[in-house]
Order: sequence, then C-alpha cells, then structure tokens
Amino acid sequence: MAATGTVVALSGGIGGAKLALGLARRLAPGALAVVANVGDDFSHLGLHVSPDIDTLVYTLAGLADPQQGWGRAGETWSFMSALAELGGPSWFRLGDGDLAMHVMRTHRLAQGVPLSQVTAEVCASLRIATRILPVTDDPVRTRVRTDQGWLDFQDWFVGHRAALTVRELAFAGAAEATPLPAVLAALAAPDLRAVVICPSNPLISIEPILVVPGMRAALAACKAPVIAVSPLIGGRAVKGPTAAMLTDLGGAATAAAVAERYRDLLDGYVIDEADRAALDALHVPAIATRTLMITLADRERLAADVLAFADRLGASA
Amino acid sequence: MAATGTVVALSGGIGGAKLALGLARRLAPGALAVVANVGDDFSHLGLHVSPDIDTLVYTLAGLADPQQGWGRAGETWSFMSALAELGGPSWFRLGDGDLAMHVMRTHRLAQGVPLSQVTAEVCASLRIATRILPVTDDPVRTRVRTDQGWLDFQDWFVGHRAALTVRELAFAGAAEATPLPAVLAALAAPDLRAVVICPSNPLISIEPILVVPGMRAALAACKAPVIAVSPLIGGRAVKGPTAAMLTDLGGAATAAAVAERYRDLLDGYVIDEADRAALDALHVPAIATRTLMITLADRERLAADVLAFADRLGASA
Repeated sequence: MAATGTVVALSGGIGGAKLALGLARRLAPGALAVVANVGDDFSHLGLHVSPDIDTLVYTLAGLADPQQGWGRAGETWSFMSALAELGGPSWFRLGDGDLAMHVMRTHRLAQGVPLSQVTAEVCASLRIATRILPVTDDPVRTRVRTDQGWLDFQDWFVGHRAALTVRELAFAGAAEATPLPAVLAALAAPDLRAVVICPSNPLISIEPILVVPGMRAALAACKAPVIAVSPLIGGRAVKGPTAAMLTDLGGAATAAAVAERYRDLLDGYVIDEADRAALDALHVPAIATRTLMITLADRERLAADVLAFADRLGASA
Repeated sequence: MAATGTVVALSGGIGGAKLALGLARRLAPGALAVVANVGDDFSHLGLHVSPDIDTLVYTLAGLADPQQGWGRAGETWSFMSALAELGGPSWFRLGDGDLAMHVMRTHRLAQGVPLSQVTAEVCASLRIATRILPVTDDPVRTRVRTDQGWLDFQDWFVGHRAALTVRELAFAGAAEATPLPAVLAALAAPDLRAVVICPSNPLISIEPILVVPGMRAALAACKAPVIAVSPLIGGRAVKGPTAAMLTDLGGAATAAAVAERYRDLLDGYVIDEADRAALDALHVPAIATRTLMITLADRERLAADVLAFADRLGASA
C-alpha cells in the first residue's frame, strides 16, 4: 500500500526544482508544498524578480528550458536587443516570455498583494497543483562580502559570475522577517509524511530559508522525518558555486560537511552513490543512491528513494 | 538659396509622425523640434506607456513598423503569449521589443527623472537628431465621456476600439500643467522658421497640447508662421477616429472645420488636393497639395511644400 500524506520540500532554484518535480509526480496532486528561497530576489529595472520561485514555477508547469534549467523553453530575446539599443543594462538577461512574470508580479506587489498570493495566482493560472510558498512575504536579501566589499547577491552571482571569493554571507531583513503562516501550517500538518531539504546550495538557497525566525524551531518540532539530499557528488556540485563557497567559507566541500550544517534538523540524509564511503562517518541515518538528475525518470526515481527512506524512518520512530 | 532656421512641429502619433519624419529629412540635423501629445499616456500593468512619443521615436529612428505605423518593425509577441497564460490582460498589446521602452521609461520616472529627460535619453541612444519634447512633464490625461460614462482614453480607444460615441472630452490635469520650458524656448527662438501643426487628430492629439496653459499664447506670440496641415482628405481621416469624433461632438468633418478650431493661431493652412474646392471658403491663406503620405518620398514632398508655403508667408509678413 502506498503511503499517503503531505510532503514539504525546501528548495532553491535549479537542482531543488528538479527534485520538487520528481516529488510532485510521485505524490497525489496538491500533496506537495515547496518552501522557496527568496534571498535571491531583487529589483531589476524596477521589476521584482524572484529567480527561485520562477524556476520552481516553470519547472513544475513544464515550461522550463530543459537545457539551462532556468527560464522558459523556446524563449525569445527581443526585449534585451531593444534594451541594448536604448543603452539599458545587459548583465541580467530577461527573456520576452519571462518578462510577463516579472511585470505581472511587480504590478500585483505594487497593488499591495503579498508575494505568496501573487505566487498562488501564478500557480493557479498555470495549473500547478503543488503549492509554491515563499518562506516569507517579508524581504530577505542575500548579501555577499568579497574583497571588493559587500555585494547584492545577483550582482555577485550574475554580474560577477560568482567569480569573487566569498568572505561572508548575510541575509538582510531576515531577523525582522516572519515565516509565511502557510509554511508553518504545512510543517505542522497532522498528515505530514516527510520534509525534504532539496539538493540546493546549503549556504545561499537553504540557509536564507532557515534563518527566518521560527523556521528552525518549526522544523525541529516537526513530527515527520526531515531528510536532506546532498547537493554534492564526489565533492562537486552539479551546477553552481556550492563547492567553492563551502571551502571559501572555511568548510569542506563534502556531503558530510553539508549534513553537519543541518545536523540539529535531520532525521535522515541521502548522499550520492559516489560518496558511499562517507556513509559510516555520518552521524545520522543515511542512504546512498544516484542523485544526479538528468532525465525526468531520474527525478522521479530519486523522489521515490527519498520518500521510501522517509517512510522507513517514520515507521521506526 | 535654401532657407535656414529651426522648425517646431506639434504632433500626435501616426499621421503626425509621418510628416515629422518628412520635415526632419528636409531640415538640417537638429533643426526640428517636435512637441508631442501626452494625453494618450497611461499606466498599464504598472508600466508608463507614452504612445505618441513612442510612435515619434520609432518613426524618427527608422524602427517603426511600416504597415501599422506604430510599434516596432519585426516585433515578436512572446510577452503577450506568456501574459495570457498568467491570466493577464490582453486588450492592450505590448510587443517584446517595445517593452524595453516602457520598462526603461517607467524605471527612470520612478527614479524621479522627468519624462522630457527620459525622452531625450532615448533619442540620444537611438541617435535621433530631432528633439522630441513632451508638451509638459506634468500628467495630462485625455478622458472620453460616452453613454457608458467617462472612460480613460486608452480604454475608449483600444479597449472599446473607438466604437462608443464621444459626448465630451476632458484633459485631466491640463489646468495645473506647465509647458516644458524647452517647448516655450523653441517657440521663441530667434531663428524659428515655422511652426507646423501636423495632420493629427485636432481633438485628441493637438487639443491636449494646446490646452496646457501658456501654449496658445506662446503660439499666438510666435513670430514665425504657424501652418496647420489638415488631417482630413475629402471628409475622411487617413486612419483613426478623427472624422467620427468631429461630427459626434457637433462639428463637421471637413478641412474647413478643422481650420476653424485653430483659427486664432493660424497663418496658413494646407489641405488636400481633393478638397481644393474649399480653398475659397477658408479664412486663412491656404494651399492645396497631396497630403496622403504612403511613401517616404510623399512625406518629404509634403514637408517641402509646407516649408515653402511657410517661407512665402514669412517673407510677406
């Protein structure tokens, strides 16, 4: 008999969205809620851009560009060409179709509608059954200290191509932020089956979720097993600056070091089969499986492995 | 010997922009200033759209769609498709490349930059030598009273396809508006050769320019000849609702009736050769020529005719 119940996933952008899609396809419609990082959000040309929410939306709606993992498939770029003619900034590329999201969101936010409701409206329009929940409706903004000083996240990540060594991270606004009530409700749901920390960057995708006051406590109090999936395979990230950031900030770029960051929260940990040797050294129940998600089948299989592991942990609790 | 000096044109969108382009090509670079109507401006999805300024910009930059006369040639429409998926409004169509203009303008206005400066920046980026001057940096908004009540101009014009009978027009904000100093300076320039009222809709393109306090006086005080070009040919407008509006508001859809509206301002009037029979009935010096502008050569020839007529009037003054 298949287990029932709801699942909460914590996710950043591309890698997290892949597993979120796998989970959504393994669960009943509406059984999954994804808590999204908003630390990457920023204002560009007056438009409110929420990169991680957008990647989750496009991925779960089946609209994502399959090659790059972000943005829309079949995108056109007339806006950027015309913007260049007008002398506008070219460092952050906004696709023509993608602009509809930013313009609509910015317009709704300006009308006083909170980000969570705007996101719910978008999900309803695109018939996404999964709930995508920004961790908070308050502004939390990741800032990066480099040898050139403090930079806004997108300035560091896109503007400088993540090439400047990270000396320190900060999450502006986090201390004053309130978790979205729907997030706390999802974590306290009586039918909660598992919480999955997706294979996202622990420092800049998951941490800005966890630093919102009350989030760590809500996860610690959660009765369902909390499982993280390592974003590293053999010490390397599939995509993005995770490995370099971990070492730049004085840690190790290993699956074990990531588990250590989540230590007080975890009931289980999933690492890649390439890291199987690390299993014994972990201080938490763990399994090794293939975590690289290339195909849709990869995503569904990893989701199934994670859910089965969670169910085993839940049954033995 | 060709006459020198500067020329000021008053213009709405499509028809006016055609003659403005003809004038620009007949004059030395920078000798033309176009005073643009801002009564059609509106906010759509939080974006500030200035339809007449945009049509002038695209026309003078050689970017305009040659078929429809507004918007950009070779435009793509991914934004509108994605907007429809998101449940956004479809009644006003924004092209992907055109969006760069609206996003940049909205962003600059939000930074406190006046519309005239934003427009000057756009012209500089697109290497438009002609100065495009909004008649005022203050908001003036054309409103249309119909049997369904008062409507914003674009709601009437685009939303209702100009199909509702016009009972009354109003120009919200006009009484409190101040003419752009550069407009008054252009009209008072010692080397001013002519003022040309373009063949734009007298009621909704030229009137919202004239109602800005001080504009009629500046035109009346202007030493150079003021010439209007009739927007009607045989009682019909080339494009748009001019003829129907004139009769809806109790006037006649004739070249003579348009001249009557400008009576206190005009030193000369240019009508189409099809209306030659009306020449004798006009109370102002007038010529008849071909005013239909299909080709670029048509625009240049009409511009040349208008300038030659102005020079004759100026010499005899």
